[in-house]
Amino acid sequence: MATALASDLNTVTLGAPLALDSGKSLANVEIAFETYGELAEDKSNAILIFHALTGDQYVAKTHPITGKPGWWDRMVGRGKPIDTSCFHVICANVIGSCLGSTGPATPAEDGQPWGMRFPVITIRDMVRAQVALLDALGIETLHAVVGGSMGGMQALSFAANFPGRTERVLAIATTARHSAQNIAFHEVGRQAIMADPEWHGGDYYGGTGKGPEKGLAVARMAAHITYLSEQGLTEKFGRQLQDREAKSFGFDADFQVESYLRYQGISFTDRFDANSYLYITRAMDYFDLAEEHGGMLADAFKDAGDTRFCVVSFDTDWLYPTSESRNIVHALNAVAAPVSFVELSAPFGHDSFLLECPALDRVVKGFLG
Amino acid sequence: MATALASDLNTVTLGAPLALDSGKSLANVEIAFETYGELAEDKSNAILIFHALTGDQYVAKTHPITGKPGWWDRMVGRGKPIDTSCFHVICANVIGSCLGSTGPATPAEDGQPWGMRFPVITIRDMVRAQVALLDALGIETLHAVVGGSMGGMQALSFAANFPGRTERVLAIATTARHSAQNIAFHEVGRQAIMADPEWHGGDYYGGTGKGPEKGLAVARMAAHITYLSEQGLTEKFGRQLQDREAKSFGFDADFQVESYLRYQGISFTDRFDANSYLYITRAMDYFDLAEEHGGMLADAFKDAGDTRFCVVSFDTDWLYPTSESRNIVHALNAVAAPVSFVELSAPFGHDSFLLECPALDRVVKGFLG
Repeated sequence: MATALASDLNTVTLGAPLALDSGKSLANVEIAFETYGELAEDKSNAILIFHALTGDQYVAKTHPITGKPGWWDRMVGRGKPIDTSCFHVICANVIGSCLGSTGPATPAEDGQPWGMRFPVITIRDMVRAQVALLDALGIETLHAVVGGSMGGMQALSFAANFPGRTERVLAIATTARHSAQNIAFHEVGRQAIMADPEWHGGDYYGGTGKGPEKGLAVARMAAHITYLSEQGLTEKFGRQLQDREAKSFGFDADFQVESYLRYQGISFTDRFDANSYLYITRAMDYFDLAEEHGGMLADAFKDAGDTRFCVVSFDTDWLYPTSESRNIVHALNAVAAPVSFVELSAPFGHDSFLLECPALDRVVKGFLG
Repeated sequence: MATALASDLNTVTLGAPLALDSGKSLANVEIAFETYGELAEDKSNAILIFHALTGDQYVAKTHPITGKPGWWDRMVGRGKPIDTSCFHVICANVIGSCLGSTGPATPAEDGQPWGMRFPVITIRDMVRAQVALLDALGIETLHAVVGGSMGGMQALSFAANFPGRTERVLAIATTARHSAQNIAFHEVGRQAIMADPEWHGGDYYGGTGKGPEKGLAVARMAAHITYLSEQGLTEKFGRQLQDREAKSFGFDADFQVESYLRYQGISFTDRFDANSYLYITRAMDYFDLAEEHGGMLADAFKDAGDTRFCVVSFDTDWLYPTSESRNIVHALNAVAAPVSFVELSAPFGHDSFLLECPALDRVVKGFLG
């Protein structure tokens, strides 16, 4: 179970209930967010960054639980591609998550944690919550929305559902709909969590148990493989052994890749809530931007006007391969939206958007102007 | 936990202890096997088929637990590509498995199930056991060895370690070494099993519990995704909903692909032992035919003489992609072994070798003569 957060969270409590795609609504929604750089007096320089599945608002600040640098520290800051000496960057924790925004671990009206009583949310619901945050902050039009992976889904959903509220949309390593394979991998993770007897139907908060840590670690391990390329894994680990000269003929982590994955799984449980993992993966699996707009993806963008789009994919990303980006670009072309598209070459698979990729830096800097 | 097997198993008990790569040895090894078609008087028409990770000796006979047709029923039989009206087909359950051959569920010398006291085995150990079976059957030289996936690894290992004992080697959808990604997926499965409190350190036999069924189901689900292509999953399931008109906004199996995977996971636990899954995946991860032969794959085949090889890959197999087959072929070319190689086009991913693929039928029939 995630460690308790520090109390110096920046939050806004939404004044009105948040209407959800499920037909339900959420009252007293809290949105935790961080900002970077000064907002211009005319409020024209704001960029909203959407985070990915296990990301958070600590884009370029030390993570309060892990103590590690922000997840996009290399991209956001003074003199960096998203330059906080000119731009005011906002990043909010998505609803359903566990870094301060309302989610399954936060108290429901009865004072008890929501647990699995929390309503199932969608990517559009996450976006609605962040638009409500912008309203609360008095920001009408953004310079840009930016996101990678699930952040890219939110960027596309924002463009489709709130046309006119951003001048630019930068969608990186993402898709307009979750494929059967995407859903399948997420379902493995959910079943791993739910199979853990410590899950207790999602009602594990406040007890003496540690929650479904083992199940969550397995879920993270399975997902983590999909974030890396086969080539990247081979280059990084190959069949190298971990701190030993020969195979142990046992079930310890003989291979470096095993040791690495086990560490990824275990360390994840320190910073993330298993129920949040269930809800956010569900939201991603439900995502199908075309379906929300009568089955035609182009129709999602028909009101986009002169909003400029930039779509970026990576050649080694097999989670959301270039073909998915191409679908988005075709839809934008069909409504004559101004769009640039590039497939970058990087060895790291889906995670390329988070890692050292100078070509991405140039694309981001150039597009944001 | 797998249901008890019927008592009409065909088994041979090896007369001598089986030496293992770990340095240990196994006494009183039982090998369960099935045969199909008559053995010629001069014993010249025998084909040894090696099964894959979760396969068994019931190639073309009804499975004793599931009641389903044999796993390669479409390939093996009278008038089929591996024609039992001319060939005598032998298929043995690998050691470490759970369909009658010695494995973690069988009694050790103290009469208690081996459990995790069973020695870690390798692909070569599996092959050694089957060569001992051939010796027991009095078959010196095979017409062919044939295998797909882990069966292909055994076929290659047989050729490398027992040159001269087969005239032909047919290796389908396989690899000469497990990649970091291959190891990573197996490690997820093993961690899922070991995370299940019903695993009890492998000591779950004979109790009232059902063993680590939930962990084994998750392991199977994760592995199953790797057996299918993204394209195949999309064609078969796409984002179609399961028995409902609209999303449930819950955590039931809304999507057909979820329902399918859950079924694959659960039904697997009826026929397979979790400890066997641990041992066999470990054997596959340890497999590196080049490493066994001084680091040069070509050296593995330097004594192959005039043994003929046929290597088959599938264009949508991302578990053991065509590049892995190409490595094998390059090594065979380097020692001037007679080898034919074909990449077949089939939509089913790695599982193509088990499914309807007429081109494979023609290759198999043609190669075996």
